[in-house]
Amino acid sequence: MASYLITGSSRGLGLALVSRLASLPAAQVGKVIATARQDNSPQLTEIVEASSGRVELVKMDVTNKSSIQEVAKLVEGKLQGKGLDYLINNAGLADYAPAGLEGMDNLNELFHTNVTSVHNVTQGFLPLLRKGEKKVVINISTTLGSFAKAEVYRLSPTPAYKISKAALNMLTIQYAQQYEADGFTFVAISPGWLRTDLGSSRADLPVETGAEKVVDIVQQIGPHQNGKFLNIHVPGWENAPGNNQYDGEEVGW
Amino acid sequence: MASYLITGSSRGLGLALVSRLASLPAAQVGKVIATARQDNSPQLTEIVEASSGRVELVKMDVTNKSSIQEVAKLVEGKLQGKGLDYLINNAGLADYAPAGLEGMDNLNELFHTNVTSVHNVTQGFLPLLRKGEKKVVINISTTLGSFAKAEVYRLSPTPAYKISKAALNMLTIQYAQQYEADGFTFVAISPGWLRTDLGSSRADLPVETGAEKVVDIVQQIGPHQNGKFLNIHVPGWENAPGNNQYDGEEVGW
Repeated sequence: MASYLITGSSRGLGLALVSRLASLPAAQVGKVIATARQDNSPQLTEIVEASSGRVELVKMDVTNKSSIQEVAKLVEGKLQGKGLDYLINNAGLADYAPAGLEGMDNLNELFHTNVTSVHNVTQGFLPLLRKGEKKVVINISTTLGSFAKAEVYRLSPTPAYKISKAALNMLTIQYAQQYEADGFTFVAISPGWLRTDLGSSRADLPVETGAEKVVDIVQQIGPHQNGKFLNIHVPGWENAPGNNQYDGEEVGW
Repeated sequence: MASYLITGSSRGLGLALVSRLASLPAAQVGKVIATARQDNSPQLTEIVEASSGRVELVKMDVTNKSSIQEVAKLVEGKLQGKGLDYLINNAGLADYAPAGLEGMDNLNELFHTNVTSVHNVTQGFLPLLRKGEKKVVINISTTLGSFAKAEVYRLSPTPAYKISKAALNMLTIQYAQQYEADGFTFVAISPGWLRTDLGSSRADLPVETGAEKVVDIVQQIGPHQNGKFLNIHVPGWENAPGNNQYDGEEVGW
């Protein structure tokens, strides 16, 4: 009966993660707290209503520290003395800069949402995670933030996204190092290039596939993976031509 | 008679870089524009006064886009139709967080100064750099921002510095990729752990040594180094015990 909190749940990968978790047996997945900046997503509301109280929608703006603090208190009450097992930092922004760096004017915004907000959310829920049995934090990252793959993604016109996700990866390592001795597991996961508003309709995979494969990783995660950068595994994509091989291996930073 | 612009010149490495450049023959180093947020550094004023007009101090706040724009215009006038050859993005901030991530509340500030401001300064001077003969941009980074060395620096209590410098490194790659075809060379250089306010008195090297070795790299830089992360070379430190080997090799990202 593990508990989960997922940020950015109103659409895209966040919504699909909530949907996937809600579809699993109660023995595997207990309470799912789905947070979103707005609480007006019809798809999320539908999942909540069909879940018999297992999935709860909580309004939280990850970019706002007081919103995080309020929600941490609220969630503490909802967990009735238990801890939080899994935190999935999914909320994030991308940029699209076809004109290149001349047009990149949103670096601070992407840093704040993709990195600083992940830090603030993690700090906010750390006391509840300490009380949890799993103590797992997943930061949704991307191979676009990998230095090892920088040449491969040379032509992807998302410089601020790449830069902020490289920073998120380094944040992940800082957490992994500091909290390892306390039994925590911090990982960065690349969910694949998914057909969402962020990923566009030209992307490799349906969002449901990305969510399923991320949940596959999450459910098997343990302390031996602390501080790693993990790729999803999609059978048939291990040696796919093009940029993206979803081989389930570690991604080079 | 190459021209240089160095940010953050009032103290520390920036001041030492200006001093080193001013000490070289005029055949190697022409105009040196030393920018600083404040123009009240006695040491910098002394260098300017002794330079017979070769070194000029210009007040510029790298965190302020209009300040950058104003100074770019001013420098254009000073260069009298010539371009700018070398831009050294040196201005930067570090954090000291002995309590670890719980105390890290300055991530946005470090991102803004260490990454976004480098982007804004580079954009601001890009037209002048295009007119330059060298087209070289040096981003002063640090091995603390390297994923390859993250384990080595596990106990260095500067998480926001590490995270922001990893982001700066990815910014450097974005620039290297985009402007390669235009003849530009963008590199990240780790100047070593230097005895400055930022590096503390416990650091490995006198700031003058770091500045000398950075200038050694800068003077030999060419397009074949575009997109690289370079370490200084200090004879005797190639295989030093401890964390820092100043071997002049490329640093793993």
